[in-house]
Amino acid sequence: MLYFTSDYTTGAHPDVMARLVATNLEHTVGYGADPYCAEARQLIREACQAPDALVQFLVGGTQTNATVIDALLRRHEGVMAADTAHINVHESGAIEHSGHKVLVLPSHEGKVRPDEVEQYVSNFYRDETFEHMVAPGLLYITQATEYGTVYSLAELEALSAVCRRHQIPLYLDGARLGYALASDGADFTLADIARLCDVFYIGGTKEGALFGEAVVAADPARLPHFFPLVKQHGALLAKGRLLGVQFGALFTDGLYTRISRHAVLLAQELRNVFVEHGYRVALDSPTNQQFFILPNAVMDRLLPDVSFELWGPRGETETTVRFVTSWANTKEDIDALRSLLDKI
Amino acid sequence: MLYFTSDYTTGAHPDVMARLVATNLEHTVGYGADPYCAEARQLIREACQAPDALVQFLVGGTQTNATVIDALLRRHEGVMAADTAHINVHESGAIEHSGHKVLVLPSHEGKVRPDEVEQYVSNFYRDETFEHMVAPGLLYITQATEYGTVYSLAELEALSAVCRRHQIPLYLDGARLGYALASDGADFTLADIARLCDVFYIGGTKEGALFGEAVVAADPARLPHFFPLVKQHGALLAKGRLLGVQFGALFTDGLYTRISRHAVLLAQELRNVFVEHGYRVALDSPTNQQFFILPNAVMDRLLPDVSFELWGPRGETETTVRFVTSWANTKEDIDALRSLLDKI
Amino acid sequence: MLYFTSDYTTGAHPDVMARLVATNLEHTVGYGADPYCAEARQLIREACQAPDALVQFLVGGTQTNATVIDALLRRHEGVMAADTAHINVHESGAIEHSGHKVLVLPSHEGKVRPDEVEQYVSNFYRDETFEHMVAPGLLYITQATEYGTVYSLAELEALSAVCRRHQIPLYLDGARLGYALASDGADFTLADIARLCDVFYIGGTKEGALFGEAVVAADPARLPHFFPLVKQHGALLAKGRLLGVQFGALFTDGLYTRISRHAVLLAQELRNVFVEHGYRVALDSPTNQQFFILPNAVMDRLLPDVSFELWGPRGETETTVRFVTSWANTKEDIDALRSLLDKI
Amino acid sequence: MLYFTSDYTTGAHPDVMARLVATNLEHTVGYGADPYCAEARQLIREACQAPDALVQFLVGGTQTNATVIDALLRRHEGVMAADTAHINVHESGAIEHSGHKVLVLPSHEGKVRPDEVEQYVSNFYRDETFEHMVAPGLLYITQATEYGTVYSLAELEALSAVCRRHQIPLYLDGARLGYALASDGADFTLADIARLCDVFYIGGTKEGALFGEAVVAADPARLPHFFPLVKQHGALLAKGRLLGVQFGALFTDGLYTRISRHAVLLAQELRNVFVEHGYRVALDSPTNQQFFILPNAVMDRLLPDVSFELWGPRGETETTVRFVTSWANTKEDIDALRSLLDKI
Repeated sequence: MLYFTSDYTTGAHPDVMARLVATNLEHTVGYGADPYCAEARQLIREACQAPDALVQFLVGGTQTNATVIDALLRRHEGVMAADTAHINVHESGAIEHSGHKVLVLPSHEGKVRPDEVEQYVSNFYRDETFEHMVAPGLLYITQATEYGTVYSLAELEALSAVCRRHQIPLYLDGARLGYALASDGADFTLADIARLCDVFYIGGTKEGALFGEAVVAADPARLPHFFPLVKQHGALLAKGRLLGVQFGALFTDGLYTRISRHAVLLAQELRNVFVEHGYRVALDSPTNQQFFILPNAVMDRLLPDVSFELWGPRGETETTVRFVTSWANTKEDIDALRSLLDKI
Repeated sequence: MLYFTSDYTTGAHPDVMARLVATNLEHTVGYGADPYCAEARQLIREACQAPDALVQFLVGGTQTNATVIDALLRRHEGVMAADTAHINVHESGAIEHSGHKVLVLPSHEGKVRPDEVEQYVSNFYRDETFEHMVAPGLLYITQATEYGTVYSLAELEALSAVCRRHQIPLYLDGARLGYALASDGADFTLADIARLCDVFYIGGTKEGALFGEAVVAADPARLPHFFPLVKQHGALLAKGRLLGVQFGALFTDGLYTRISRHAVLLAQELRNVFVEHGYRVALDSPTNQQFFILPNAVMDRLLPDVSFELWGPRGETETTVRFVTSWANTKEDIDALRSLLDKI
Repeated sequence: MLYFTSDYTTGAHPDVMARLVATNLEHTVGYGADPYCAEARQLIREACQAPDALVQFLVGGTQTNATVIDALLRRHEGVMAADTAHINVHESGAIEHSGHKVLVLPSHEGKVRPDEVEQYVSNFYRDETFEHMVAPGLLYITQATEYGTVYSLAELEALSAVCRRHQIPLYLDGARLGYALASDGADFTLADIARLCDVFYIGGTKEGALFGEAVVAADPARLPHFFPLVKQHGALLAKGRLLGVQFGALFTDGLYTRISRHAVLLAQELRNVFVEHGYRVALDSPTNQQFFILPNAVMDRLLPDVSFELWGPRGETETTVRFVTSWANTKEDIDALRSLLDKI
Repeated sequence: MLYFTSDYTTGAHPDVMARLVATNLEHTVGYGADPYCAEARQLIREACQAPDALVQFLVGGTQTNATVIDALLRRHEGVMAADTAHINVHESGAIEHSGHKVLVLPSHEGKVRPDEVEQYVSNFYRDETFEHMVAPGLLYITQATEYGTVYSLAELEALSAVCRRHQIPLYLDGARLGYALASDGADFTLADIARLCDVFYIGGTKEGALFGEAVVAADPARLPHFFPLVKQHGALLAKGRLLGVQFGALFTDGLYTRISRHAVLLAQELRNVFVEHGYRVALDSPTNQQFFILPNAVMDRLLPDVSFELWGPRGETETTVRFVTSWANTKEDIDALRSLLDKI
């Protein structure tokens, strides 16, 4: 079986796992106050060129979004996001559970546009009844988006500028941030992200860790009293060092970058394979997620040998599908896929 | 000054006020356990032909919506509503404050369509990831809507049928229910509403009371433990009898109906006045809210003598405006308005 | 029947009701932006000697507590209160509904002690695990308390000093504030309350209004964005002027003070009547609530003619009872009660 | 250094870690729908003699408590718990964050008494104002407790009987359940727990796993729609199989029992060592947590070589301390501790 279902269908990258094994019998204090977390925080600060940054490790994406958004919003405020945003669609109402409304912006293949953010905020305060409405108090974006698309540096700068003009924090969900950074044409660095966003997180779960997300705020004053809030949200891992150990591995010798670049390169090859065989690309993604429109007959021929995801319901004659690559895929996987397509 | 700004710019209808004055010095127990509330509950049960109905009085609309919706939804569920719905736009996030997401349906001049509700619910459960999404657990509609439009009996029956097929309660916000019942062409009664909706409320604030909304559930099992929830939401009036006294007045000798019909008739006259003068109707409303598109020059001529509301921002050359009638308006108000328009 | 059940068993004081009637047919804007609210705010600012104070009117006590506490607390914080506090016992979990824990302090006949507040806060930060616990973020007190007792000026100053030393706001629930101010021996003024508390409210419901509570913050910066929060809590009255009209009446010609003093004087007489007849006072209260321990036989003799409340369950041979006076009681009520006791 | 600080200072038991390594490169679906979770669920059902049980894996204790309690309580209800309960003290208000009040019962060395539960519930419904109060809707207990004490079978049966008489679910927090089961004198089995409690969880984090707690409800109807609620609480692990793999290891060949018994036996030896040396036991615990009162001089002599926890603040002359054993401790650790004490 060839696996292209998702980037979280295996355990950890071997180097991450090796470090977990190597440190397994050591005794440390809990809740992230251990030396491994301290070291990983320092590595991340350096990678972000943000020497004073608050770095807090959490376990998963939904809990990270819920906790950060709860920390950043005042009670009368909501969070602006694309209508396709993970927090608006696939978090079972975790944001609302903490009392906050998601304020929906148009999605352009997963991205929001600076002018539409500007318009939303400006119109809001122009409305005479605005005090009866939920104020836009935060902008949430994903990088890469749920559709594999990527904001350019210019777009990020424009979004950041709009937000700062209105004193609205910008929060970036980086569940797949590495793949965005490693994409062809990426003209921004982790340091740019740290500079332009008030808070963001570096995803571990989908980038080679067993689990774990690293929240970063270049200015720690952006997240006061964050630790008890993490605890309140049930997001504090008792054996917190497991997060430090893993992020330490990911940010040593460029592993995070290598994992990301490896997956992106394979994704581009995979895309070429489909294009060569005459299949249509559904969406132009430079990252490790690829979307194709396949005739149902072709899809059905692949399914016994290849694991991938239907993107939406099965169509009458053709269906949109998603292929995802990760560190666990190899060049051989792509070749095998090509051979399968050759036979169809 | 002619007042058409809203139906809640005065105090109470004189008959309601008279009864508050007449009972003012009496002593009764608090929190709605008094004889006036008991009597008003009985009158409402009769008007609804729902002899076993739970009838609970609350103070205002937003708190009523927040409390009822909180009572009806399970924690993993959200409430479907038109994107123009009061709960989605003008309640400062009160629904989300209780932890619930508003699931947005297309608005057709304030109304939702049964087929689109059906589609939303069906698609939801067809999605393989539905357990990661907020389940549709309730349908919220307004009657009359925020745009003065009215669901017909057939539409209400269709919505009710969709909801019951999926075991989803139907909740009707009747802040202006009387005006819908009194509108020309209304082919439904209060008893129909009670039969087709699981829960609804009869608005008092905009229909002649100082304040007050009467929540009705024909089957009281729909709202178990509702009393402590009302208290928890801060919606329990200490001197609860004030609500019973007022609703008792409204439901004696057809006052509620007379108030509503009076306003609707004036609204139709008012509409005719504008149409006669060649102005455009923005929206076809059979109720006490009327919407016109006025040239800015006309609007500016009216403003010194007539109080009404801009519906959205002032346009470059013309502006949509809202005129609302109530028991406090008279035939003379309409005549005076006609005279003003004659001179423009 | 003689009524001593509570201070909210009638409608409004006649002067308040008269003003509601007099203004009933006027048209004003809604939600508290009308001239009556403006005037009442100004009268309250003057009475509090707090010229810049934010004054916001809400409808009832529980919603006021829930809204103010929600406004003042950060998410990782809870509110300290006596274990007998209204918010801890009789608000159906309204504080927790907004996500906040009530941190319980010992109750001394309804009051908390400054040294115990100091100890609670100091111990909290001395605990190594304090970031896993709910931080004390606010102190809630009632004046007069649920037991009719009153904090002296020295006690208020000491509580305020503790709070300010720890940068913890002090919030006073003044549902019966007038009765405390009017009690014999009261050595503080409304201006002292405004100076020593960060936020407090002046109760209307139990002091002659139909309903209504006036939240006061001498420094408006204490309650930023309070208006949308009031709306979010369902506590914003559409016909907001009703609150302005009533508080305007209460703060004109000293009506609030007269109502309070009248009830306190009658309460002291009532107390004397019981003491003269040899019954025990359960609790030393200088305000309009009085608590006695009556033999069950005596209680049963009174019940057909006198309305009062059992304070806790009926005992085997004697029972604690509560008598409350208000503007609606007269000297004749006391005389009639004396006659009844004479005959027992 | 000898480590007795806690049972979560290392990674996983070697057998658990070995299985994580062995399965690391496999591909499985996410969110717990994989074969490892299915197998672990089955093993737990068998160990509980509850063939139909719902078994859901979560990551940590606080999130498990918050999610289960949120699932079991209706909105007007609170959860009864000892005042020393973890949910009342050390979860940063996670229960209140979901809108629920903790209703405090007296703690008897961490345990609640059936008669006091009975009294609480009975008194509640006897109070005439009970609908203004938070109803007891759930009983939370810990086994072993935060003080290392253990409920006997008779006590569990009595608590269960009280709860069922009042139709109140019983929820047991089993963060250290294995140590209770393995304690000398334990007269109950996992099957008894499953039979007597409506919901409970089997702790993994403190019992040899890297992380993970297994929620069990013998009757799955007790936790309807639990999956989306887990997601909503941010408690759903993407790579859910990690939990299945670990619990599969723990419930194979009696590993969970062996880990627990090993720690309990060492704890008893450790206790004997202190007693032999004349030190006082602070609390009679049959589990892996032991509490002693040590002279400060002795404590200070131990601290350079032994890691343990101060239980509360350092006293003037003596201090209460906590020693905890786990699978990671050995007989040699106890001998080494004895030697150290010999020299003091």
